[in-house]
Amino acid sequence: MAKIKKQPRPKAQTPKGFQDYFGADVTARNEMLATIAGVYHRYGFDALETSAVETVEALGKFLPDVDRPNEGVFAWEEDNDWLALRYDLTAPLARVAAQYRNDLPSPYRRYAMGPVWRNEKPGPGRFRQFYQCDADTVGAGSVAADAEICAMLADTLEAVGIERGDYIIRVNNRKVLNGVMEVAGLSGDDKEAERGIVLRAIDKLDRLGADGVRALLGEGRKDASGDFTKGAGLADAQAEVVMGFMEAKRDTGAATVARLNELVGGSAIGLEGVQELETIAALLEAQGYTAERIEIDPSVVRGLGYYTGPVYEAELTFEVTDEKGRPRNFGSVAGGGRYDDLVKRFTGQEVPATGVSIGVDRLLAALRAKGRMDQTAMGPVVVTVMDRDRMADYQTMVAELRNPNDGGEPIRAEVYLGNPKNFGNQLKYADKRASPVAIIAGSDEFDKGIVQIKDLILGAEIAKNATLEEWKDRPSQYEVPRDQMLAKVREILAEHS
Amino acid sequence: MAKIKKQPRPKAQTPKGFQDYFGADVTARNEMLATIAGVYHRYGFDALETSAVETVEALGKFLPDVDRPNEGVFAWEEDNDWLALRYDLTAPLARVAAQYRNDLPSPYRRYAMGPVWRNEKPGPGRFRQFYQCDADTVGAGSVAADAEICAMLADTLEAVGIERGDYIIRVNNRKVLNGVMEVAGLSGDDKEAERGIVLRAIDKLDRLGADGVRALLGEGRKDASGDFTKGAGLADAQAEVVMGFMEAKRDTGAATVARLNELVGGSAIGLEGVQELETIAALLEAQGYTAERIEIDPSVVRGLGYYTGPVYEAELTFEVTDEKGRPRNFGSVAGGGRYDDLVKRFTGQEVPATGVSIGVDRLLAALRAKGRMDQTAMGPVVVTVMDRDRMADYQTMVAELRNPNDGGEPIRAEVYLGNPKNFGNQLKYADKRASPVAIIAGSDEFDKGIVQIKDLILGAEIAKNATLEEWKDRPSQYEVPRDQMLAKVREILAEHS
Repeated sequence: MAKIKKQPRPKAQTPKGFQDYFGADVTARNEMLATIAGVYHRYGFDALETSAVETVEALGKFLPDVDRPNEGVFAWEEDNDWLALRYDLTAPLARVAAQYRNDLPSPYRRYAMGPVWRNEKPGPGRFRQFYQCDADTVGAGSVAADAEICAMLADTLEAVGIERGDYIIRVNNRKVLNGVMEVAGLSGDDKEAERGIVLRAIDKLDRLGADGVRALLGEGRKDASGDFTKGAGLADAQAEVVMGFMEAKRDTGAATVARLNELVGGSAIGLEGVQELETIAALLEAQGYTAERIEIDPSVVRGLGYYTGPVYEAELTFEVTDEKGRPRNFGSVAGGGRYDDLVKRFTGQEVPATGVSIGVDRLLAALRAKGRMDQTAMGPVVVTVMDRDRMADYQTMVAELRNPNDGGEPIRAEVYLGNPKNFGNQLKYADKRASPVAIIAGSDEFDKGIVQIKDLILGAEIAKNATLEEWKDRPSQYEVPRDQMLAKVREILAEHS
Repeated sequence: MAKIKKQPRPKAQTPKGFQDYFGADVTARNEMLATIAGVYHRYGFDALETSAVETVEALGKFLPDVDRPNEGVFAWEEDNDWLALRYDLTAPLARVAAQYRNDLPSPYRRYAMGPVWRNEKPGPGRFRQFYQCDADTVGAGSVAADAEICAMLADTLEAVGIERGDYIIRVNNRKVLNGVMEVAGLSGDDKEAERGIVLRAIDKLDRLGADGVRALLGEGRKDASGDFTKGAGLADAQAEVVMGFMEAKRDTGAATVARLNELVGGSAIGLEGVQELETIAALLEAQGYTAERIEIDPSVVRGLGYYTGPVYEAELTFEVTDEKGRPRNFGSVAGGGRYDDLVKRFTGQEVPATGVSIGVDRLLAALRAKGRMDQTAMGPVVVTVMDRDRMADYQTMVAELRNPNDGGEPIRAEVYLGNPKNFGNQLKYADKRASPVAIIAGSDEFDKGIVQIKDLILGAEIAKNATLEEWKDRPSQYEVPRDQMLAKVREILAEHS
């Protein structure tokens, strides 16, 4: 019993690397998740929600160091078991696919959305809890499953508000790269180290550019700090084949395919990969997903080291201005591919799977950048309190707005519940709440059977812009009979919507 | 570096006390949460989503034992800080209310929904991760805030499908109990121990019944196993006052109030409590929430030890049959009350708060028990694969169903993506998916420009019930021109909806 004595006062602080989300940020994300779930569901995918906690064993991490019990994941020991927070939604899917393999339909299409946790050093924009939103098909070896996911991804982007022309889904294939390696003479068992270096090198194309990758394919590369990274040691001709792969994109899909066939000519696996890309393109074309939306692009290299077949990535193509005011492409919002060893760790069986993960928070940021999201979500109508003893009347007013009997939409409304003594505080409160309308009624109004209705949005505009004459001509406060309160509030809200 | 060698094969198993949720169970809960959020939002409550992880310091647990580092919570050490999974949604609210106190509106109405974690021994129906769904008003001392939450709770229950008459919200007040204690001579500083025993005793009313509580108010109680629990040692007359409080409910609210006034006659705090109950009832009555929906009931004792003012609980009043087939009341699905020391630990300031927590999973179980939920959610239309080379045509069919151009609702549909060789497997798959309709087209059909449409629901019914004549008269498979596929599928789905 080593209890430490009570601290004087705890700090009220979000733990480092975690975030709190308020109001419209929460509801916008929930709405987006619901929209995405709607598309996934329409494609026959079923929801799956696993718990946040898995055994470390099932997650596929080795039991951790004693010194550093949770490298990469948040983990703790529990009755001789190590438990951990999931770091993605794929590892839990693998566990579920193995655990329920006799009960699940096969193929099993599932979607999952929720937070995942990473035990990493937090940094600007790098959080230790964030949302993922995945759809995977388990048990379908056919590339029709990959094509379907690409089509679904296009539908999803359009459903959440990304217009056609503002995104492109690019498809590549790991098998083509395998073919390229074979042609470059890197296919033997003794070449595993070189293949690893090549994979890591091309994964850095975005960051290092073609010259950087080429250096890593050859002797190696010295970075800006002077550190040297040893390269794969490929001869120029070998390196040329690999570089040619990443630069194989041509103006049309057919020309790209022709170029890839040239590159992997001698390799069976390479030709199979090109064939798969052609099949995917044909399947999508038949459904109207033409190359303006989904195209073959061998420069998609992210994840090629992880995936075993088709790889796909959704990029938003419009420009945004970055924090320094410079224009740049928004970039990737979703990615995925085929990985055929999902449940093998558990069962020994190879089960083919393919899936996509959407970066929900990036997608939200994109919509915000495009001005497609209502940034200034309207607050509630605030019924102010002039007379503390009339609380039942004020409550009745909000009830009438929330549950209107005129057949119209319910109106978001609340009564001021703070100390009503200082009326200025009530209007400041309404301002902080972004209220469009305030209702005001004291003894005078109750005696006369009326209410005052203040149009706070118009009021703010007038205060900002109007001349004295306009101010007089455009009153922002109305006196209406009590039984016309609902109608007048509706009228004002309609003007501002 | 104490790495343990790699295990041969990991177990694919949900960690003990955790659960996986599939398909309709996930979507039904999400829909319920969205409905509840809609009501909360209408009442002016704002969403708040904090991370799953808090510092143990902020959660308000003492640093744990060395032997048992996570009693009650799941906790782990992280860079000299103890982090933990939140065990409810109130502790994070307290942290947020203190941390952002200068930015949040006051009063601050917020709702939060999400999983919480308890490090407890798992048992039947007791899980270590479950959902909570809370709404709280921080910074409003007026009981108008309590009344509002009771009204919102009634609206919420009706919004999710609990009919009026099938629930009752019962309201009590800790201050009345304080008055009762005072009258019973238990108010001195030297009586803290007795007051503690009394609070614990009445909290057990549900479990021990009136006789058990009375024993604990007096000398003590021996349970079935022979163990003796020491009582508060009250004299009969004192115990009578306490028992009288719990049994003070009368036929009308007015009579109950009169009885409570009798009981706490001599106590200022007691009279204040009764007054608050009267005010709440009056405020609710004015908005149409009469005693059939929300009533004063001093037998609501759960949480009286924790709360400082009004306490409320929502109970479903219909009977269900338990696992042994016996009828019983469904019972409580939500509860809450006023707790005026929310942020004091952090800031030293007393901030009044009141709030409610809805047990979402219990509410879902209630709706299931009432048959108010669609248990047999319809699966997708399945387009079968007769000819592997026609995949593009099959994909085009599902695309037509999912994104129909006839202006109607999209139809959930999928193509069979498993190995198509054995057609029986495809129909078994459709069955497992609860598909209402299968589409069948091979070379014959493509040549003739037709498709076969199988009504799987009707087919199953006929197989079960029909005589041979009926079977002949009611075909469950239709041959239609390809361009009438969409219309025919719609027709069949409409028949089954």
